[in-house]
Amino acid sequence: MSENCIFCGIVAGAIPSTRVAETDRAIAFMDINPGTPGHLLVVPREHSTDLREAAPEDLTAATLLAQSLVSRVIDRLDADGANLLSCIGAEAWQSVFHTHLHVIPRYKDDPLQLPWHPTPGDLEEINATAAKLT
Amino acid sequence: MSENCIFCGIVAGAIPSTRVAETDRAIAFMDINPGTPGHLLVVPREHSTDLREAAPEDLTAATLLAQSLVSRVIDRLDADGANLLSCIGAEAWQSVFHTHLHVIPRYKDDPLQLPWHPTPGDLEEINATAAKLT
Ligand SMILES: [Zn+2]
Ligand SMILES: [Zn+2]
Repeated sequence: MSENCIFCGIVAGAIPSTRVAETDRAIAFMDINPGTPGHLLVVPREHSTDLREAAPEDLTAATLLAQSLVSRVIDRLDADGANLLSCIGAEAWQSVFHTHLHVIPRYKDDPLQLPWHPTPGDLEEINATAAKLT
Repeated sequence: MSENCIFCGIVAGAIPSTRVAETDRAIAFMDINPGTPGHLLVVPREHSTDLREAAPEDLTAATLLAQSLVSRVIDRLDADGANLLSCIGAEAWQSVFHTHLHVIPRYKDDPLQLPWHPTPGDLEEINATAAKLT
């Protein structure tokens, strides 16, 4: 655990989040600044700054959890696809320096572009979406 | 192997590519329509339509190869970061239906936006970049 790391705080439960799935090594929770409805973050429990520094078993666990969530958002949110994205470094749009994978559901003709401009989503909507995913 | 799949052709060596790394289960080669200099694709040797259908061991192998290439592009191309991206479904910008991970080096103030508009890169430049990565 790294002090002052918001995702370590979420893993520990000290910072609130809407968790939708977890395994021994990774957890998935809703992004509160969703690029599209259902946008999730998957993080290894163990702190690392970015994907380069993640232990192989942690990166593997996060990737396999993300894989299952890609299927889940497509099935349960009626999404038409999804993107898996990781940002390594500030120049690559990383803003929280704890390794994470974005799972971004995609919908026909949605306007998503990257970089997206993170703006807070409606928490009730986010939680209603999370309920379909758990 | 899936007939008419360009990436299966590249894995088999029947379609030319500039390969920079390989393992038992995955290969990495240069994207000929690079979003930024050094743009790589990592694919499992085994055909699957998209990441949902990849066997866990194939997805793991591709991810760990991509992880090592993220470090390599940052170290050897003097990149400032990188993105790891997978597109699942046409609505998510997938255009070749064989599971693949993009490793996109990022450079301070580069103009990358997604979706990018694939345009052929200069093959000599691409091969010169590949030589730094092998
Ligand atoms: Zn952390
Ligand atoms: Zn194929």
